[in-house]
Amino acid sequence: MTRLRRNVEKFWAAAEARDWEAFAGTLADDVAYEAPMSRERVRGREAYVRFNREFPGDWHVRVERVVAEAGEAVSWVRVTDGDDVHVGISFFRGDGEGRIVAVTDFWPEPYEPPAGREHLTERY
Amino acid sequence: MTRLRRNVEKFWAAAEARDWEAFAGTLADDVAYEAPMSRERVRGREAYVRFNREFPGDWHVRVERVVAEAGEAVSWVRVTDGDDVHVGISFFRGDGEGRIVAVTDFWPEPYEPPAGREHLTERY
Repeated sequence: MTRLRRNVEKFWAAAEARDWEAFAGTLADDVAYEAPMSRERVRGREAYVRFNREFPGDWHVRVERVVAEAGEAVSWVRVTDGDDVHVGISFFRGDGEGRIVAVTDFWPEPYEPPAGREHLTERY
Repeated sequence: MTRLRRNVEKFWAAAEARDWEAFAGTLADDVAYEAPMSRERVRGREAYVRFNREFPGDWHVRVERVVAEAGEAVSWVRVTDGDDVHVGISFFRGDGEGRIVAVTDFWPEPYEPPAGREHLTERY
């Protein structure tokens, strides 16, 4: 198991537990967060912990999948807040100790299938 | 380098080249495709090759990142079609030979940042 994978698992477990000290412990001092779809960036551990700590709602997160190699990882999570369900996909980069130095995340939304491919697909 | 990673790279290179024979060669016979956000599923290599071959538009794909471990991989790609730009994120599972047995993909769209976190974020 890579150290980064273990830290990514701790990252989500700490977020779910609102254990912001443990959460901060998974991050490098100069961690950088980017959300390409909203073009937002957060720089540094303190701001990034606050960004998560202040995230509104009674949200709960469950890890669906983590794929990791040395220095790189991706998680797919399911976030629920009451009846709202969201999918989050996060790309991580780690330093030599496996601390998270970069997080880039995506929050895809449901959409209707484009017309013209019903002959190849089924719905579920 | 894992065999699955190499196959994921071939998968995208073959799609970009419209080389559907090479594309099919990256897939297991019983490959299953799912798009959770549109709840579409495609079963089997023949249907999944057609699903990609018949995809409309003059699209071009560039791989931004691949993260892989034994049997699991994720790609982040940038797909352009004229002025349209899309991000695609695909989770892959491989068989013992590294052939792709499962693809699950997500197509996140741009969104406006929620209010109330401007004190922590910058825009880019």
